[in-house]
Amino acid sequence: MFPRAAPVFGLAKRATASSSSTPASVSVLVSVANTRSYSAPVGNAIPPAKKKYVPTRGSYPQGFRVGGVVVGVKPNNTTKPDLAMIVSDVPCTAAAVFTKNKFQAAPVTFSRDLLKKSPQVQAVLINSGCANAVTGKGGLEDAAAMAAAADSATGGSGTIVMSTGVIGQRLPIQKILDGVPRVYAGLGSSHDHWLATAKAICTTDTFPKLISKTFTLPSSTTEYAIAGTTKGAGMIHPNMATLLGVVATDAPLAPAALAPLLKHAVDRSFNSITIDGDTSTNDTVALLANGVAGGKTVPNDAASPDYIAFQEVLTDFAAELAKLVVRDGEGATKFVTIRVTEAASELDARRIASTIAKSPLVKTALYGKDANWGRILCATGYSLISEPGEAEAATPSIEPTTTNVSFVPTDGTAELKLLVNGEPEAVDEKRAAEILELEDLEILVRLGTGQAEATYWTCDFSHEYVTINGDYRT
Amino acid sequence: MFPRAAPVFGLAKRATASSSSTPASVSVLVSVANTRSYSAPVGNAIPPAKKKYVPTRGSYPQGFRVGGVVVGVKPNNTTKPDLAMIVSDVPCTAAAVFTKNKFQAAPVTFSRDLLKKSPQVQAVLINSGCANAVTGKGGLEDAAAMAAAADSATGGSGTIVMSTGVIGQRLPIQKILDGVPRVYAGLGSSHDHWLATAKAICTTDTFPKLISKTFTLPSSTTEYAIAGTTKGAGMIHPNMATLLGVVATDAPLAPAALAPLLKHAVDRSFNSITIDGDTSTNDTVALLANGVAGGKTVPNDAASPDYIAFQEVLTDFAAELAKLVVRDGEGATKFVTIRVTEAASELDARRIASTIAKSPLVKTALYGKDANWGRILCATGYSLISEPGEAEAATPSIEPTTTNVSFVPTDGTAELKLLVNGEPEAVDEKRAAEILELEDLEILVRLGTGQAEATYWTCDFSHEYVTINGDYRT
Repeated sequence: MFPRAAPVFGLAKRATASSSSTPASVSVLVSVANTRSYSAPVGNAIPPAKKKYVPTRGSYPQGFRVGGVVVGVKPNNTTKPDLAMIVSDVPCTAAAVFTKNKFQAAPVTFSRDLLKKSPQVQAVLINSGCANAVTGKGGLEDAAAMAAAADSATGGSGTIVMSTGVIGQRLPIQKILDGVPRVYAGLGSSHDHWLATAKAICTTDTFPKLISKTFTLPSSTTEYAIAGTTKGAGMIHPNMATLLGVVATDAPLAPAALAPLLKHAVDRSFNSITIDGDTSTNDTVALLANGVAGGKTVPNDAASPDYIAFQEVLTDFAAELAKLVVRDGEGATKFVTIRVTEAASELDARRIASTIAKSPLVKTALYGKDANWGRILCATGYSLISEPGEAEAATPSIEPTTTNVSFVPTDGTAELKLLVNGEPEAVDEKRAAEILELEDLEILVRLGTGQAEATYWTCDFSHEYVTINGDYRT
Repeated sequence: MFPRAAPVFGLAKRATASSSSTPASVSVLVSVANTRSYSAPVGNAIPPAKKKYVPTRGSYPQGFRVGGVVVGVKPNNTTKPDLAMIVSDVPCTAAAVFTKNKFQAAPVTFSRDLLKKSPQVQAVLINSGCANAVTGKGGLEDAAAMAAAADSATGGSGTIVMSTGVIGQRLPIQKILDGVPRVYAGLGSSHDHWLATAKAICTTDTFPKLISKTFTLPSSTTEYAIAGTTKGAGMIHPNMATLLGVVATDAPLAPAALAPLLKHAVDRSFNSITIDGDTSTNDTVALLANGVAGGKTVPNDAASPDYIAFQEVLTDFAAELAKLVVRDGEGATKFVTIRVTEAASELDARRIASTIAKSPLVKTALYGKDANWGRILCATGYSLISEPGEAEAATPSIEPTTTNVSFVPTDGTAELKLLVNGEPEAVDEKRAAEILELEDLEILVRLGTGQAEATYWTCDFSHEYVTINGDYRT
């Protein structure tokens, strides 16, 4: 379960998004006598339906300067920023969560080793356009050279490096090294600087992902800020999705507190989203805290009110960032929350939510606006089964006669029950169609076998997804 | 590992398929100024490219009479056989493997209970058009009523029942009960009878799946026959894929030998295929042996030469049937073998093969004819990782520096190495494109950490798949 024990202390969202009322569809469906046509997104403009997710201002943490410049990691890129830098004016503490993929990219290996030695860093340097993954010893040298160039620019010590883009190719390292003094010279703390940073880490994302907030902690009236950027799943040959995220705050945190706080937040955010179930070689989410805003240091004590309050701020913040990745899922037309409750254990709840969230049958049904509860039930039913050859797992969480499945509309209207205690409801198809027309939807599975729960966020599976990932020449 | 210890004793394939050289594409791609159009398959005719998989004759086991008739399980069906019956002239022994999905359909519950009481049965009765799944107590009564009607027709005792089709709807049970005497009256042992049976169990399959073979066993010169039919993954709203299979032989098998022989075969065939990773509520594969051809009974002794020989015959036969399901995967344009070798354990090899076989990124790359080894490597790398909250698994099978990935062409030409001991090869893109143009392809992953191996069969992920599963009104 995800405890919500603490009240939210003065969580204020200042970064107002510009609401757009343009249509939600980014692909065009045309009926032509028994065939359906669609078009892939064209150009680099932000799709009208996604503009509302890009803030026009924000409240950013003190003592951080950021920026992004064009260095042309991909030879044909001359316009999109592809080198980002985030620098703390004073040495700050950092923690990071890395991919569990067994084939880890060079920047993952480098940054993991760096943080093992010391949690104190000064900067994060990120390039897009090339993932520096499966690049052997030379790739590790490139990652180290990036960090050294950044250290040299900041005069400090300790730079986390991240890369995202093409796998299996070496970085154009000289271009990046030459770019470091340039990006450093242009750093700043304005909204535009943060937006440039968010843009520079994008690959095939259709919009930059940036959030900022202010908050207070119970022990003082000091106003803190937290800001972060992430990039998500966009793969066009020969790219590979690599989720990256950086979150920076000016709150003072005990160095030892960062890792548990970040892990708690990531498990409930970046580790609870899926586009297609593929976990990349480069996934990295880092948290930086420089304490520049002053006040009492948040101790590494999970019982401390300040710790509890910051944990909630960070977890909600990370979830909000992670959801932006799902909103920009390849070809996605829907944003779907999968909530599994009343499970015998949180791990079971997570596995069931994850299985439903990944099922191609569920995801294509959502795309087709089809209230196909049978597929949701089916995914639930096979979520805990074992491979042949493996001992059969006990599955106390799943009991057909206590299982309930509902659609929960996001417009505040009543839930639509599809399955009640294992018995199908006579579904009001008109009502189901109304709910499925909404861009946002929650699928609620109540297992009736315990008190644990988990939430996943996913998107639908569209023709566009296949086009983006299959049409290698486009 | 899958031992191939025994030589094949007189395995003869008599059921000659009619080879067709018509084009392999069943969907039409049309370029229209920056958009791409496609058409879903139309009508019930067998696609030209699939005709070669439908035999025009066969050698069928003695003492079995089979058939299929139209009963109209779906109200609008007036032409496609939808009730199939397989009857042994004498009581025969049977075993079955059932889905592990926690939501099991009524016929699964009924048939499992039946075989628990006694392995001796007389018939199998199968309807398509309705899965009798999630239908509560009434559904169980319907399954029992089907069996009783079949028992009454055969005068014997013991009928395995299977259902496939729409989930969450009750069977039109009277139509089926009325149809049982009719299908029984028309039973026969000709090729046409077997083909009608194969057709009657299909739902959205594009072709009936039927194989027959003759074989001998080491202990005698008696010629035995084995025949079987299966149906696969085809889902159009509101259907749910339900894999069914029936294999019948006139060889004499010790009753206790059937279950282990079938489990061995199914683990290496029906449990090693994936279309989309969804395990249905109705999956059932049954083996019937009536011993009518005479000869020495195959003992339940895994060391006996007859047992070993029959095990190989059955396993190969089941694999051949299972591969037909993959060939008819929804929207599939490719048949892909995923072979993982040199693993530390068979379970690891299976999990890695299964993860690659299910990865939407790998499957869309195959559809796009893209030699994207990065995605294969990525899937390998995350195949053994744990959920957050779960203890991290030891993964001795995966060691980046000993991992090799190759494409193995099915035309007998040399393999194309993509990754050698963790280092990317400079891939000959022209050669890769040639290999990827073939309908059949093998992806070989050599882990270099052990001797165990596993094979999965899968297909690609196409626009057609999304159309079939998403466009609920078509």
